[in-house]
Amino acid sequence: MRKLSIVNGPNTNFFGIRNKEQYGSVTYESMMEEAVAYGEQRGFAVEVFQSNGEGPLIDYLQKLYHEAQAAGSAIPVVINPGAFTHYSIALMDALESVHDLVPAVEVHLSNVHAREEFRHVSWTARECIGQIAGFGKEGYKLAIDAFKALEAEGRI
Amino acid sequence: MRKLSIVNGPNTNFFGIRNKEQYGSVTYESMMEEAVAYGEQRGFAVEVFQSNGEGPLIDYLQKLYHEAQAAGSAIPVVINPGAFTHYSIALMDALESVHDLVPAVEVHLSNVHAREEFRHVSWTARECIGQIAGFGKEGYKLAIDAFKALEAEGRI
Amino acid sequence: MRKLSIVNGPNTNFFGIRNKEQYGSVTYESMMEEAVAYGEQRGFAVEVFQSNGEGPLIDYLQKLYHEAQAAGSAIPVVINPGAFTHYSIALMDALESVHDLVPAVEVHLSNVHAREEFRHVSWTARECIGQIAGFGKEGYKLAIDAFKALEAEGRI
Amino acid sequence: MRKLSIVNGPNTNFFGIRNKEQYGSVTYESMMEEAVAYGEQRGFAVEVFQSNGEGPLIDYLQKLYHEAQAAGSAIPVVINPGAFTHYSIALMDALESVHDLVPAVEVHLSNVHAREEFRHVSWTARECIGQIAGFGKEGYKLAIDAFKALEAEGRI
Amino acid sequence: MRKLSIVNGPNTNFFGIRNKEQYGSVTYESMMEEAVAYGEQRGFAVEVFQSNGEGPLIDYLQKLYHEAQAAGSAIPVVINPGAFTHYSIALMDALESVHDLVPAVEVHLSNVHAREEFRHVSWTARECIGQIAGFGKEGYKLAIDAFKALEAEGRI
Amino acid sequence: MRKLSIVNGPNTNFFGIRNKEQYGSVTYESMMEEAVAYGEQRGFAVEVFQSNGEGPLIDYLQKLYHEAQAAGSAIPVVINPGAFTHYSIALMDALESVHDLVPAVEVHLSNVHAREEFRHVSWTARECIGQIAGFGKEGYKLAIDAFKALEAEGRI
Amino acid sequence: MRKLSIVNGPNTNFFGIRNKEQYGSVTYESMMEEAVAYGEQRGFAVEVFQSNGEGPLIDYLQKLYHEAQAAGSAIPVVINPGAFTHYSIALMDALESVHDLVPAVEVHLSNVHAREEFRHVSWTARECIGQIAGFGKEGYKLAIDAFKALEAEGRI
Amino acid sequence: MRKLSIVNGPNTNFFGIRNKEQYGSVTYESMMEEAVAYGEQRGFAVEVFQSNGEGPLIDYLQKLYHEAQAAGSAIPVVINPGAFTHYSIALMDALESVHDLVPAVEVHLSNVHAREEFRHVSWTARECIGQIAGFGKEGYKLAIDAFKALEAEGRI
Amino acid sequence: MRKLSIVNGPNTNFFGIRNKEQYGSVTYESMMEEAVAYGEQRGFAVEVFQSNGEGPLIDYLQKLYHEAQAAGSAIPVVINPGAFTHYSIALMDALESVHDLVPAVEVHLSNVHAREEFRHVSWTARECIGQIAGFGKEGYKLAIDAFKALEAEGRI
Amino acid sequence: MRKLSIVNGPNTNFFGIRNKEQYGSVTYESMMEEAVAYGEQRGFAVEVFQSNGEGPLIDYLQKLYHEAQAAGSAIPVVINPGAFTHYSIALMDALESVHDLVPAVEVHLSNVHAREEFRHVSWTARECIGQIAGFGKEGYKLAIDAFKALEAEGRI
Amino acid sequence: MRKLSIVNGPNTNFFGIRNKEQYGSVTYESMMEEAVAYGEQRGFAVEVFQSNGEGPLIDYLQKLYHEAQAAGSAIPVVINPGAFTHYSIALMDALESVHDLVPAVEVHLSNVHAREEFRHVSWTARECIGQIAGFGKEGYKLAIDAFKALEAEGRI
Amino acid sequence: MRKLSIVNGPNTNFFGIRNKEQYGSVTYESMMEEAVAYGEQRGFAVEVFQSNGEGPLIDYLQKLYHEAQAAGSAIPVVINPGAFTHYSIALMDALESVHDLVPAVEVHLSNVHAREEFRHVSWTARECIGQIAGFGKEGYKLAIDAFKALEAEGRI
Repeated sequence: MRKLSIVNGPNTNFFGIRNKEQYGSVTYESMMEEAVAYGEQRGFAVEVFQSNGEGPLIDYLQKLYHEAQAAGSAIPVVINPGAFTHYSIALMDALESVHDLVPAVEVHLSNVHAREEFRHVSWTARECIGQIAGFGKEGYKLAIDAFKALEAEGRI
Repeated sequence: MRKLSIVNGPNTNFFGIRNKEQYGSVTYESMMEEAVAYGEQRGFAVEVFQSNGEGPLIDYLQKLYHEAQAAGSAIPVVINPGAFTHYSIALMDALESVHDLVPAVEVHLSNVHAREEFRHVSWTARECIGQIAGFGKEGYKLAIDAFKALEAEGRI
Repeated sequence: MRKLSIVNGPNTNFFGIRNKEQYGSVTYESMMEEAVAYGEQRGFAVEVFQSNGEGPLIDYLQKLYHEAQAAGSAIPVVINPGAFTHYSIALMDALESVHDLVPAVEVHLSNVHAREEFRHVSWTARECIGQIAGFGKEGYKLAIDAFKALEAEGRI
Repeated sequence: MRKLSIVNGPNTNFFGIRNKEQYGSVTYESMMEEAVAYGEQRGFAVEVFQSNGEGPLIDYLQKLYHEAQAAGSAIPVVINPGAFTHYSIALMDALESVHDLVPAVEVHLSNVHAREEFRHVSWTARECIGQIAGFGKEGYKLAIDAFKALEAEGRI
Repeated sequence: MRKLSIVNGPNTNFFGIRNKEQYGSVTYESMMEEAVAYGEQRGFAVEVFQSNGEGPLIDYLQKLYHEAQAAGSAIPVVINPGAFTHYSIALMDALESVHDLVPAVEVHLSNVHAREEFRHVSWTARECIGQIAGFGKEGYKLAIDAFKALEAEGRI
Repeated sequence: MRKLSIVNGPNTNFFGIRNKEQYGSVTYESMMEEAVAYGEQRGFAVEVFQSNGEGPLIDYLQKLYHEAQAAGSAIPVVINPGAFTHYSIALMDALESVHDLVPAVEVHLSNVHAREEFRHVSWTARECIGQIAGFGKEGYKLAIDAFKALEAEGRI
Repeated sequence: MRKLSIVNGPNTNFFGIRNKEQYGSVTYESMMEEAVAYGEQRGFAVEVFQSNGEGPLIDYLQKLYHEAQAAGSAIPVVINPGAFTHYSIALMDALESVHDLVPAVEVHLSNVHAREEFRHVSWTARECIGQIAGFGKEGYKLAIDAFKALEAEGRI
Repeated sequence: MRKLSIVNGPNTNFFGIRNKEQYGSVTYESMMEEAVAYGEQRGFAVEVFQSNGEGPLIDYLQKLYHEAQAAGSAIPVVINPGAFTHYSIALMDALESVHDLVPAVEVHLSNVHAREEFRHVSWTARECIGQIAGFGKEGYKLAIDAFKALEAEGRI
Repeated sequence: MRKLSIVNGPNTNFFGIRNKEQYGSVTYESMMEEAVAYGEQRGFAVEVFQSNGEGPLIDYLQKLYHEAQAAGSAIPVVINPGAFTHYSIALMDALESVHDLVPAVEVHLSNVHAREEFRHVSWTARECIGQIAGFGKEGYKLAIDAFKALEAEGRI
Repeated sequence: MRKLSIVNGPNTNFFGIRNKEQYGSVTYESMMEEAVAYGEQRGFAVEVFQSNGEGPLIDYLQKLYHEAQAAGSAIPVVINPGAFTHYSIALMDALESVHDLVPAVEVHLSNVHAREEFRHVSWTARECIGQIAGFGKEGYKLAIDAFKALEAEGRI
Repeated sequence: MRKLSIVNGPNTNFFGIRNKEQYGSVTYESMMEEAVAYGEQRGFAVEVFQSNGEGPLIDYLQKLYHEAQAAGSAIPVVINPGAFTHYSIALMDALESVHDLVPAVEVHLSNVHAREEFRHVSWTARECIGQIAGFGKEGYKLAIDAFKALEAEGRI
Repeated sequence: MRKLSIVNGPNTNFFGIRNKEQYGSVTYESMMEEAVAYGEQRGFAVEVFQSNGEGPLIDYLQKLYHEAQAAGSAIPVVINPGAFTHYSIALMDALESVHDLVPAVEVHLSNVHAREEFRHVSWTARECIGQIAGFGKEGYKLAIDAFKALEAEGRI
């Protein structure tokens, strides 16, 4: 099975705890379990990585790049960069530097376009294939579907 | 079968003609056929509406509202507002005024976050459930999947 | 009786349906009936026009201009431009081009100055005699009173 | 008879002297006489207050608040804040702090929306019920009518 | 004879009526007659189209595109987008989507660069070959001359 | 005992009346009594001054300066400039001109950094020793403690 | 002898105390004495007025207006608006409303153009004949000279 | 004894080394010793945590949240976010996600409001109870006092 | 024959060398020859002037002014200010100061409105009769035609 | 006699020709004669220099610097930088580099503060002693007076 | 031999992999080898440190500070902060806090001034001695040369 | 020997005179002598050109272009554009138009990134190979080294 990674940024591991009106009360753990199960059902071996820091997130993306290079096959990434979405030029550059072998789709649980103005801007999405926002935990599954479709078109 | 509408704004009917690097060469007509077929396969009776003007688009959303009211059941909308995304406050207000019975998901073929800066801002997405951008014609299908998931959660 | 027109822009016909906290639950139809009746009581033959598009609104203002020219007497307009207030330079230019024979007063049901910042700016009011905002359906009547006073001063 | 106050800010007492193209040549004194008479005809005991300073204007609004509290009945205010409209956050806060018992309607003689850009912004209107602008001295009367209508609806 | 279209946006049909200091008192009709005659003299069969709405203008440009495709020859357009110049991203996108077969030159009667600041920006000119502004009705003729020169160079 | 002044700007005297969610329901009078008592317990003779106008506030600060000069000892000031915080350059200049003998600490009851954006900027704090915000009436006491500490360090 | 007024805004009475590097150590009192003496030597009866509040400054300008009207001769004003220069639209409006009979010249001791950016903007100078900045107490004398020259040209 | 945490961001551990005019020459270590001692004297068991990275700071706040949950009692935090104050949306989100059980007070040694403009903005303070700035090492003690007062009011 | 001048700013003499995609490969010299020939055919004696400095360009415009005055007849100018277009207020002022006798039309080879944002602003065009941009070397001829038309109307 | 220079920037030599409402009809030559005569009467040997280019103006200021150095005495400069006022950082730097021996006073005939917004900003004034604006040709004399006063104070 | 450190920020370790048009295809490893060799040849013992996170980079700079203090001799740093250049105020503060003993020179491989606008701003360079950008891997060597020259002048 | 030019903009010839804290006291002449000697030692025949005006600088770059063309070999330029760096679009365009044969490296003596904000922006660097700032007179030598390295790589 092809490998696919779900990468989650700062504070995402507090979904179900944090800001329940915005994110609902499903816990992060059950959300990830559901996404992993769904990914496997669609034919992907899913790895989940979470960190609250820019450094480890970039390190992880670079590690995936080397893995993909070794395996001779791209590793798709579903990424929820949390607040880094709105100011981490370093994470954007990282996505750009690995995108040949580690193509990414950005996911947000909430509809960021309907929230505070500073959340309307996405630096990281500039170096992703696309963005899916506003569907809660379903977003991860839709992103997996999106990769399935891109795979069918031979684009990954 | 539940009704679902696909609403397309200005210049979308020129996909396949216009700006092929950005949008690919699949024609608008075949794109819609594929989306309608997919919708029906997922259990929706799909209606497609396109207009290059704000007025007819708002009129159409209001017509759907009355239909939904008569039918006693919400009509989901997959909307690609084209350039109106970036400045039509009137269309945003229309989406807001009908959203109880006509919930919407915004779709863009291209990854608007990676294009000119004026395309990063979405007025209309503020009154949608969410946004899906960057997956070409697959975006319409992912939006239909999203509604399927929302339906399963009893949210529409 | 002198003719007076009430011109309503996008989504105004959904008053009573849309955003009830902001606009109340009186329907558009009863609001207009009340305004027409009040206008007639003050000596005006009132015509009501509504459209969700810029084009028809400008066409209508130009039609009034020709009528006024033919009748040799100005036709006052009470206009609620809806969201066009905030970005339609075309509607502003139209009001400017007809203002000798078709003087206008802008009306808003809600107090736009207390809402989102983008609603604080009015392009259209720049080419009106004045603006009345925040009094719900009473706004239309106050605008009719305003024209009555302007008429008494020989200004229309 | 219910008390109603007309509150005028800096330079308003120079109407009829100042900038005649903008404000006409009716003097401030005759304008106020006419407004007082009209108010009484509509059933209000009208008090007029003018000051060129923020402090006295806020003091006066607070005095009205205590009067209204003592009388057990709201005192409507028709306010023309003059240039304070555009920068006095203190006056805005004052209107907010008294608004339960001292509801206000903002009036401008000229159409501020058609003048210099810095006059398009109103801080004070954010804490008023509404705004009436562009009808010269008639504006005061229309504001009194507006309160009459609000009274009929039981809103003051 | 080669077809050439003159496309006029909102309020242009009120030239001669509207804002005479800015636009002169020549009527729209005689201006168009003169332009059509001049175009014919230079070897073009001239069609004139005017609309106050974005939708019909975009529809018309798309219709020209299909005509040009059928005829196997480009149809040059002289466009005066009126106020849409300054905010219609939809019209800009339309010009972009048809520009292979429907090349455009933007014309303004007045020198927009010497008027209000919001008129200094042209969205639509970004997708035109060039812009001519400030020469009154002569502008239409200069644009026709421009196309004549482009034709001689084999660029249309 | 050393003199210390509490200086309160516009609308502060309406605490307990105004905007209770923001400021609580403790009245201004009891708040000042508590602060005066606390100050005396910490060894200061506390004077309270309140005004809704810039002029009297500046006059008062200048009066303190002359008193301090006469007494040969600095008079610390706890100042809550109310809305003047956000735009009164005159009050900022006054604080600067007296700061050798009349050092100030700025206090806000509410956490201004969590409110509207225009309340994030403080002109007056630029000429104070520091700022304390968000602790309700306790803020005045913390400022007195701060002066106590500064006194212990020989800085006032 | 013709009357001339020197009007000084907030904190100017602390010259010689405040910010000595910026303003020097000459006291306000001796500065005014010198200016009055100079004015008289040039043929003006000089009156000096100072206030820290907007209200009294505007009141004073209006009083001068009535005096000038009674005397049938303009009263020139040399004004140093202090910090009000940078934000008092009310004072600007006051200068505008009296300028026929009370023409003003703005004076600043320091070169405001070389200080903080917010001091580069002058609202009040927009309604003055001119501005003189950067010459310390000489500025008052230069302004008196300026009025002498304007008088010789019959412009006041 | 109730636990209280002092959390210090990037470069704070260089106080006493870095920028002595701004921060004084007291070393970070002695500052913390003094704060811990003071906290204990006021009844808190104080833990100190410092990191130069966003990730570890967020991890630590999340750890406190779990501790507080286990202990069934909130753990107050005195936080000096250093430069993260001015751009770390991730840290702001973290403070928001834990604030029920981990309420925070922001402290700055220097008066940030009197420094460079980019230091006037605080993202993190938006999700704190309040902010104390400008009192050097005393700030930590005043924040502990503030929590003591909040505890007395039953607010933590 | 009437004199007409073509004035070219910095770097224009490198057309054909510089940036060929933008400006084509026709050399500056042949472009000028062609323009001169065309001008003569339309009845003008054409003089060409080029400089890379603001000073010489302004000197030249002033020299033309004196010539025109001596000859008792205006000298039209076709000006391509190069990069000075975008920031030379001095050149704009020069155009303004001579415009009675030296009326100008601005020409740009490329469509400046479609290039970098800083090239959208034209200071110099504010003091020209009009602007022609986007037609390569034809622009010079169109400008000559424009003057011909203005001459026929007796406007130059 | 001490040397003093009057330095005039672009277009100033067209005073009396250019924009007469703004600058009056006195010619540049007579203005300079009058200023030279006045300067001599006040004890200065006056040299006048004018150029339309930045380069020659800076060269001239540097030449004065060397002269002053040779003579062992400062040479005051009255400078009217014309439009360079608003953008020439090079001229500002030049004034800064020579200001010890070549102190300058900026003069404008018109009240630049009451004109277009871009004329409100002065780069050059930042490196001058002061600015005099709005008194027509009198400005030059006032500046000479200013230097006389500075000389009396031993400041030049 | 004196120690010198090369510090590289996020994504620099992907040079040779990432964005080859921008950075060339030389690998990070060989680039560093070359720089180390060059440094040694010029008399420096070179240490290389790379991290993708702000925290470790600041920790490392602080560690160098303590080393330098212990050794009694400054340790020069050649730093390529990657994307942190453009937003990391924390890294800027770190450079400021260590600069006495750890002076830095900023290096960029690409000419950041010719790329996207957000890359024109450097926060970190504000606290460096200088910046060298645009020379690929040669930049590291030029920075070593720069330190050699500074050493020769006794400045490090 | 290959020719290399050092081109210096406005006020650079006053190094050693102007602003000594910023630029040191080494004179311009000795700085250039040192740079010329160094260049020759590295194998370049160095020519130095300085002007205070845009025109002569552009003329000189064009002259170099023709020389290089005649010689069939590029002439590298080390340019210090002085204040033109920050606003001369004309000089930027000139650098662009000659860059094939006249490649440039920008040098600043001071670290422009640590000075006033308007000095952070470089227009001219956009058309250079790179920029070196902050190393005083050493900067010229580092730039020569940079060209040496580029030559070794066959890039010039």
